Amino acid sequence: MTSLAYPANRSLDVICFGRAGVDLYAREDNVDMTDVSGFDKFVGGSPANIAVALSKLGAKAGLISCVSDDGLGRYVCDYLRSLKVDLKGMTIDKSGSRTSLAITEMKASDCEVVIYRNNAADLALSIKQVDKAYIAQAKILLVSGTALSTSPSREAALAAIRYARDAGTVVILDVDYRAYSWHSPEESSLYYQLAASLSDVVIGNREEFDVMEMLDKQSTEKNDDETAFRYLNDATQVVIIKAGELGSKVYTRDGKNFTQGIFPVEVKKPFGAGDSFAGALMYALLQGHSLQESVKMGSAAAAINVSKKNCTEAMPTREELMDFIATYEAA
Amino acid sequence: MTSLAYPANRSLDVICFGRAGVDLYAREDNVDMTDVSGFDKFVGGSPANIAVALSKLGAKAGLISCVSDDGLGRYVCDYLRSLKVDLKGMTIDKSGSRTSLAITEMKASDCEVVIYRNNAADLALSIKQVDKAYIAQAKILLVSGTALSTSPSREAALAAIRYARDAGTVVILDVDYRAYSWHSPEESSLYYQLAASLSDVVIGNREEFDVMEMLDKQSTEKNDDETAFRYLNDATQVVIIKAGELGSKVYTRDGKNFTQGIFPVEVKKPFGAGDSFAGALMYALLQGHSLQESVKMGSAAAAINVSKKNCTEAMPTREELMDFIATYEAA
Amino acid sequence: MTSLAYPANRSLDVICFGRAGVDLYAREDNVDMTDVSGFDKFVGGSPANIAVALSKLGAKAGLISCVSDDGLGRYVCDYLRSLKVDLKGMTIDKSGSRTSLAITEMKASDCEVVIYRNNAADLALSIKQVDKAYIAQAKILLVSGTALSTSPSREAALAAIRYARDAGTVVILDVDYRAYSWHSPEESSLYYQLAASLSDVVIGNREEFDVMEMLDKQSTEKNDDETAFRYLNDATQVVIIKAGELGSKVYTRDGKNFTQGIFPVEVKKPFGAGDSFAGALMYALLQGHSLQESVKMGSAAAAINVSKKNCTEAMPTREELMDFIATYEAA
Amino acid sequence: MTSLAYPANRSLDVICFGRAGVDLYAREDNVDMTDVSGFDKFVGGSPANIAVALSKLGAKAGLISCVSDDGLGRYVCDYLRSLKVDLKGMTIDKSGSRTSLAITEMKASDCEVVIYRNNAADLALSIKQVDKAYIAQAKILLVSGTALSTSPSREAALAAIRYARDAGTVVILDVDYRAYSWHSPEESSLYYQLAASLSDVVIGNREEFDVMEMLDKQSTEKNDDETAFRYLNDATQVVIIKAGELGSKVYTRDGKNFTQGIFPVEVKKPFGAGDSFAGALMYALLQGHSLQESVKMGSAAAAINVSKKNCTEAMPTREELMDFIATYEAA
Repeated sequence: MTSLAYPANRSLDVICFGRAGVDLYAREDNVDMTDVSGFDKFVGGSPANIAVALSKLGAKAGLISCVSDDGLGRYVCDYLRSLKVDLKGMTIDKSGSRTSLAITEMKASDCEVVIYRNNAADLALSIKQVDKAYIAQAKILLVSGTALSTSPSREAALAAIRYARDAGTVVILDVDYRAYSWHSPEESSLYYQLAASLSDVVIGNREEFDVMEMLDKQSTEKNDDETAFRYLNDATQVVIIKAGELGSKVYTRDGKNFTQGIFPVEVKKPFGAGDSFAGALMYALLQGHSLQESVKMGSAAAAINVSKKNCTEAMPTREELMDFIATYEAA
Repeated sequence: MTSLAYPANRSLDVICFGRAGVDLYAREDNVDMTDVSGFDKFVGGSPANIAVALSKLGAKAGLISCVSDDGLGRYVCDYLRSLKVDLKGMTIDKSGSRTSLAITEMKASDCEVVIYRNNAADLALSIKQVDKAYIAQAKILLVSGTALSTSPSREAALAAIRYARDAGTVVILDVDYRAYSWHSPEESSLYYQLAASLSDVVIGNREEFDVMEMLDKQSTEKNDDETAFRYLNDATQVVIIKAGELGSKVYTRDGKNFTQGIFPVEVKKPFGAGDSFAGALMYALLQGHSLQESVKMGSAAAAINVSKKNCTEAMPTREELMDFIATYEAA
Repeated sequence: MTSLAYPANRSLDVICFGRAGVDLYAREDNVDMTDVSGFDKFVGGSPANIAVALSKLGAKAGLISCVSDDGLGRYVCDYLRSLKVDLKGMTIDKSGSRTSLAITEMKASDCEVVIYRNNAADLALSIKQVDKAYIAQAKILLVSGTALSTSPSREAALAAIRYARDAGTVVILDVDYRAYSWHSPEESSLYYQLAASLSDVVIGNREEFDVMEMLDKQSTEKNDDETAFRYLNDATQVVIIKAGELGSKVYTRDGKNFTQGIFPVEVKKPFGAGDSFAGALMYALLQGHSLQESVKMGSAAAAINVSKKNCTEAMPTREELMDFIATYEAA
Repeated sequence: MTSLAYPANRSLDVICFGRAGVDLYAREDNVDMTDVSGFDKFVGGSPANIAVALSKLGAKAGLISCVSDDGLGRYVCDYLRSLKVDLKGMTIDKSGSRTSLAITEMKASDCEVVIYRNNAADLALSIKQVDKAYIAQAKILLVSGTALSTSPSREAALAAIRYARDAGTVVILDVDYRAYSWHSPEESSLYYQLAASLSDVVIGNREEFDVMEMLDKQSTEKNDDETAFRYLNDATQVVIIKAGELGSKVYTRDGKNFTQGIFPVEVKKPFGAGDSFAGALMYALLQGHSLQESVKMGSAAAAINVSKKNCTEAMPTREELMDFIATYEAA
């Protein structure tokens, strides 16, 4: 159904590109930011989370990112290294940028997150810090779209994609749209479309595809079929449109599509699902599973993640993932 | 000995000018940043601390500052309001700046502090947000020198000083030098000297006066007498040079000077002393104590603060302060 | 040989995208900048020159650009309008940018040009100022690569290319590399390669292609055949590598190539040749001439231009061009 | 009447601080910018003009400024050097700034001037480029207020004033307000007031003093007496308020004031008067003339300047100035 060709003889399965940072979770559940007594410290940032997800499943994952030269930057690196994420592509910035930081309430809904990303270290990554030979060592390059939001990270990400295409490394774009990082929606649309046209797989939710399409569409109607048709061009072989509780619609270049529902669980937090999904999806594809089977494994991993409190630590191992699916299917 | 004339009939005793932010203290003592499990949340920032110190002692304190429009900004405001600090001069910024944030280890020495002050809210304060009439309601304007480090806060602080002089409000400059906030030491020297020449009282430590003097001095020798002589000009009536464990040297316009030693206590943390000192000093002066007596009360308050773990919460009440001095002097 | 398909029923032949500015030419020839008494005033800027070249040959040309809201901006618009260049795509900026200005000595070689392009008006053009429907009215979009050098003009140019592709408008990229406009050679290489991959025709000289290839090449060897092979991909049908006095090498997608020599004339100034070439080339292609014939007409127009003193005013009419070629071939 | 004390034994009479640039004057009189054929080239910029005025009168003048490293920068330096202006304080900037450039119509009124001052070289001057010892070699430091408009030139100018005060060099502030150079009128008011309080003499017109006073005044009334009273404080001994055709009002610290009318001439251009005035005023003061006599000589020099077409070249020599006054008084 899909014709993604992963290069053989690569020392890494997946290199993730984008931010790695610190998440501070409110110590008390269901308490306003003003009233919490303090915070627990975790590693976060979508591509870092995906790298952890891959590593815990047993894949060889690397991360191209940047943190600041201080205790929080060291913490991020130490934690990732302890989970065997390869950090040859990690830059330690000494120019005054700061490791991305998210301070969050712990609420089921309307969860306030205060983001410290003014002069964020990951967005300070530049072309010169991206090593062409390193990208050529991976089967897949996973790019988090937020890396495209500002220069010089924008150019670093576009160069990474170019290097990947030259090396035969499969490119997967996780749209990961954060409005606050972008100068304007028009710029978002422009660069997302450019990056998508150079990617083998594009993963996003309905709202993210709406932003991507804004320079193209006359009307404001939202039609998954038309969206998929628009993007299954140039390099793109697979388009995955996530729809939260409705599951995911998956479209392929050959004109086919299928839907994968979600695994019902009690949701403990409103984030982590997408990163867990992406990690397990790539792991499954590289293990030789079909696209349909891989999307199912991704959905199961997402369900496991949101049913637990934290993000990186809630990423399942291969065993947990398989047990979860088996239990579900036996029910 | 000193001829500071505080205007009568003012609704506020002291307005502090400068940053207010959040301090996150490592939950575990003597553990590296990389290994702490999380952080406790407090209000911090030198002028905010001083306003709290004044308020706890019973003075009417206000704060001219700026925080971001989010849960952490609201926390800072709620906390200060709960301690009766007047916030008519507080701006809530919605332009993308962030409330100043300091994340600290809890160690007796070599204590790492990771500072998030890229596009800090307090440094986004501009002239238009400073109300001339508000400053005319206070007996003293206490300016934290860090507010001078970058535009537009620099101009807001200089305008505040100008308004204070026009209104007869006594101006006290707390040098509070943080190298990372400044473009160059030359600029620091230039603006500190300008601000000092417009201030009635200048408080700093030896290192801070060295920075202030760098455009003036030929040699690198450090001589407190010469420093005081240099600054006891223009508007300046009192120069206080703090020397840590050696106590403080106080010089006045009439050519006199005295030294105040420290009150020996077991030090729990390496910060908070200066803010507690400044708060109690101003409180005492406004209560009609002599300069010498006031400096002693400031030193006692500093000792109380560093003997406890937190900063704002360790500021003494009037009773605590008086008891502490009485106990010490009885010993 | 080439399969460029120009859309029919378009109200404009070519829309040029990029800077329009003022050229001040030293009044005295062969005199240093320090000693010239003054300057003569002309309209300049590569895409403006090309629009003029087209218009004088009889083609319907438009220009998407931006000038400042002052006498020099009005001069540029008045002059272009007097030559029937369509200015529906012209923006008048009131934000403080300035019309591009070049002040030049008039020397046969080592001719100093002082460029005023800090906050240049043309580089202030943004996506929102580019009208999709306007671009759909033209047969060809000619993009000057300098428009890619900085944001927001970079995004405006990339959006224009995207709109052109959607509308079936043929895209021609004139590399026009000016190092001083770019942040780094790596960024130049990245964006030129992106733009080239979306262009039907790419025109540059050897040095410009070297910059474009710097992210791709291992070695530093310069080989026109390899360069052409690298770029004749994606959308690109024709690659033209100009080599000054050696003429131009033209490569097409079908694997063929040919060389066009120059028309020998006495050179009066070292610029204008490329713009005259591009204008006449596009004019000829749209008139139905073969690629080979069109390149010859471009070369003849270039020769005519450099044999005269000024730039826009030296662009030949159709009659002059045909007479020049006839005279040359009769000799 | 005034007690300005010029230090003796100085190698320079006056050092002017601020911009030096190129003026391009329309070749044709009374023709719109769009229609002029070209421009004549001159040196301009208020402090450069004043230095020239001083030099032509026979005083030893220096200039602290910055031009770009190109033909126009070299032209400025060559011209000033040819008139014996000392350029030890001139910086040649290679960072991408450009020499200040003004392109003007030649009309009696409503004369459009297009200013190229984005990243102007003179505003790139920083503290480190100002030599304390050099300023100590002059009797007077003349600061053009535009130098205060943006960093780092703002700090360089404030440091120069500080160095002058330390060295006993008399400080004269020529307000020279250009709204387009400033971030906001509030900032202008703040820094002009700071600089004025450190200056021995302040020279401006009514509109300039209005800007200076905007942070101080409640009402919008304009009263020269009140303005003078406001500024005759701190260091300031003399305030000169210019009122165009009405002449100048001069106020001194001792509470006295006088008015000097203008010398009637046919005005050829609307600029140059102020620079010629300032130059001749300082020359006369240093020659030992009374303040009243010096202001008269300044007014005569202003009249001579505006009666001729150019600016620097229209500055009178001592002979011309004396003849002009003698002729006038004989009439």
